[in-house]
Amino acid sequence: MRAVPLTEVSVGDRIRLEVDGREYEGILMPRHRFGGKDIITLKLDNGYNIGIRVIKGKKAVLVKRGVEDERSVKAPKVDHKKPRISIIGTGGTIASFVEYTTGAVHPVETAAEVLYLNPDIADRCNPGVSILLNKLSEDMVPKDWVKIAEAVTAELNSGVEGVIIAHGTDTMGYTAAALSFLLDRVPKPVVIVGSQRSSDRPSSDAHLNLLAAIELVKANVSGVLVVMHEGMDDGRCSVHLGTRVRKMHTSRRDAFRSMNSPPVGWVDPLRKCVELKGLPEKQDGNATRIGDMEPRVALLYVNPALTEDDLLHAASKKGIVLAGTGLGHVNSELIPVIGDIVRQGVPVVMTSQCLYGTVNSHVYSNGRKLLEAGVIPCGDMLPETALVKLMWALTLGEDIRESMTTDMVGELGSRRVV
Amino acid sequence: MRAVPLTEVSVGDRIRLEVDGREYEGILMPRHRFGGKDIITLKLDNGYNIGIRVIKGKKAVLVKRGVEDERSVKAPKVDHKKPRISIIGTGGTIASFVEYTTGAVHPVETAAEVLYLNPDIADRCNPGVSILLNKLSEDMVPKDWVKIAEAVTAELNSGVEGVIIAHGTDTMGYTAAALSFLLDRVPKPVVIVGSQRSSDRPSSDAHLNLLAAIELVKANVSGVLVVMHEGMDDGRCSVHLGTRVRKMHTSRRDAFRSMNSPPVGWVDPLRKCVELKGLPEKQDGNATRIGDMEPRVALLYVNPALTEDDLLHAASKKGIVLAGTGLGHVNSELIPVIGDIVRQGVPVVMTSQCLYGTVNSHVYSNGRKLLEAGVIPCGDMLPETALVKLMWALTLGEDIRESMTTDMVGELGSRRVV
Repeated sequence: MRAVPLTEVSVGDRIRLEVDGREYEGILMPRHRFGGKDIITLKLDNGYNIGIRVIKGKKAVLVKRGVEDERSVKAPKVDHKKPRISIIGTGGTIASFVEYTTGAVHPVETAAEVLYLNPDIADRCNPGVSILLNKLSEDMVPKDWVKIAEAVTAELNSGVEGVIIAHGTDTMGYTAAALSFLLDRVPKPVVIVGSQRSSDRPSSDAHLNLLAAIELVKANVSGVLVVMHEGMDDGRCSVHLGTRVRKMHTSRRDAFRSMNSPPVGWVDPLRKCVELKGLPEKQDGNATRIGDMEPRVALLYVNPALTEDDLLHAASKKGIVLAGTGLGHVNSELIPVIGDIVRQGVPVVMTSQCLYGTVNSHVYSNGRKLLEAGVIPCGDMLPETALVKLMWALTLGEDIRESMTTDMVGELGSRRVV
Repeated sequence: MRAVPLTEVSVGDRIRLEVDGREYEGILMPRHRFGGKDIITLKLDNGYNIGIRVIKGKKAVLVKRGVEDERSVKAPKVDHKKPRISIIGTGGTIASFVEYTTGAVHPVETAAEVLYLNPDIADRCNPGVSILLNKLSEDMVPKDWVKIAEAVTAELNSGVEGVIIAHGTDTMGYTAAALSFLLDRVPKPVVIVGSQRSSDRPSSDAHLNLLAAIELVKANVSGVLVVMHEGMDDGRCSVHLGTRVRKMHTSRRDAFRSMNSPPVGWVDPLRKCVELKGLPEKQDGNATRIGDMEPRVALLYVNPALTEDDLLHAASKKGIVLAGTGLGHVNSELIPVIGDIVRQGVPVVMTSQCLYGTVNSHVYSNGRKLLEAGVIPCGDMLPETALVKLMWALTLGEDIRESMTTDMVGELGSRRVV
């Protein structure tokens, strides 16, 4: 095949070119608004997009004119017989472009861009894509959780098979916990999915995670779940309970872990296999929402430099979650002020900064004194989940101790916690 | 053999008795000051002490009169030809008794009690035991670290093979990091050891961990190290760098993990095997101490409920460590106030609450804006280690950014952090 200048190939054409000693073959994509003038985007056969910097006059082999490949670059055709799935974009890496000139990452802004990045979604379902928020997840605040919960309820009650929420990974665990509590009746799957590497990178997990979310929504399951890569390869994704999942690595694709309980299932997105353990089936009837989020709650990392003054500052809020040391301890000298705070009506709950294992206030005198001071021990609940649960429990008008020490959506192991 | 009433057996006798359908055989120990009147203590053959509740008139089989077993209950004979090792007690479970009547745990108060709990220490070395502090480790404060560092320096310079610090597990990681920075020249091993279960419980790891610490001190190695059980069985103990170790489980014996770098070695305490990787050998010359600890440093757990007001409260201290989300992020709306705090001269350093992986401020705009605001990224350093290092660096009178971004004792991986 003959090499032609890049000026002679068109969007949709399959081309092959060599850059810096590496050969790339794929379909030429439209120039993205963030792409520099010297950057072209190729969709590789593995589904990933890649940005390649080319010099003026660069030639490429034209493998095939892009007639049949139009689907790859335009909005995919929708098959209305396929299961109807809502995909709600909230921002984050899963719905981001790399700005190839600087390496910066920008969120998608339209539903069309989601399908542009993942055209084969339409092979598996009848997707209804909407962009609810456009935030990297570090910018999520508690009222965003309520907004997402409202959107999910509305979507579920429109009769879809389930809802997928594309979300940044930084605070995905917090949002998953928040939806677990805010959604009271969840008759269908609500699947939160993200990616650790953006869609435009060859190492991206965005595409496979999204396909895994689709397969999970099509399965006979309900509840708030997170699906993310299980390992370093392109194999299975793990399914996590929304209240048990934590980001345990800054960058690896297998960063998300179920804490203090095993994953509740696995999805092989390419083989379309789903394996689930002990989850409720899909049900009829409407989804409902309960409670709100009180944002004025402190999460304190207990450490040898924590002072009475730090606790008193936190006591100006409506509640305090301590990530205590070990089995759930603080410096004994801080216990009297914690007792004062509890007596003033500010609930103080105890989790462990160890993350694994359970708070047990009966082993050491420190724990027993904390119980006497009125601290509410939260067993094996994650500190982040306890934070979110306390924010929510404070809006229910019910007994906080009772709410925090009762398992509601799998957040708390069955062992004794009080 | 004939069963005799317990009133007819003496401390040091080997006896066998059945209680609640279980049979126990061991050497009768002196009644402990915390033991109830109806509790006897037996030293089992595996080295563990166990407390057994007996009713009045209970009989036991007298297996052997305690002539040759005196060593088990009295202070062991010291062999001055064996390597001289300092054991500094600071409190914690490793040096605790169970109060059998209530299940509560009390710290030992005398050197003799340490040897009483672990008589076979003297088989392996010539121990010099001293009780420096008597604190459960949740009560440790930064000035305790300085006190321990001073004691360690004095002991090392008295010519011992090395120093063992018996320490509670809750804040062992913090103390290990503190000693790593405070001890400038460490020509011999300084080994911190603890236990997750107290010495009097059959499941205790105290005895084997202590024997592992002794073998480690006898090895040709120097530096501040932590040695704790590797797994759930009675096999190997892992050796961790003092700046890399974190308690990752509230109660399991294998709770201690090297984070973002593998353990630096293993000890099989029963086989007396030590395997070490890449650590400096023992050296001649004195140990020296550098710097002090500034206690007024905040460690903030970044989360969706963190506010400007929380940051401003922390800014009243001398420095702030953020355990950011993901690659080291905070809500974008908080970045301006962080910039203000840095401009006021309060250093703000960034770590990740993921714990695994490294801060990278170049991937997302949030990270770049934090860099522009003057935040100091701390790579793959643990949040707790960054807290301790900042407390120490603030007392050096040197450039904080330079100190925090330069690896000194293995706390920082070699990847680019700024």
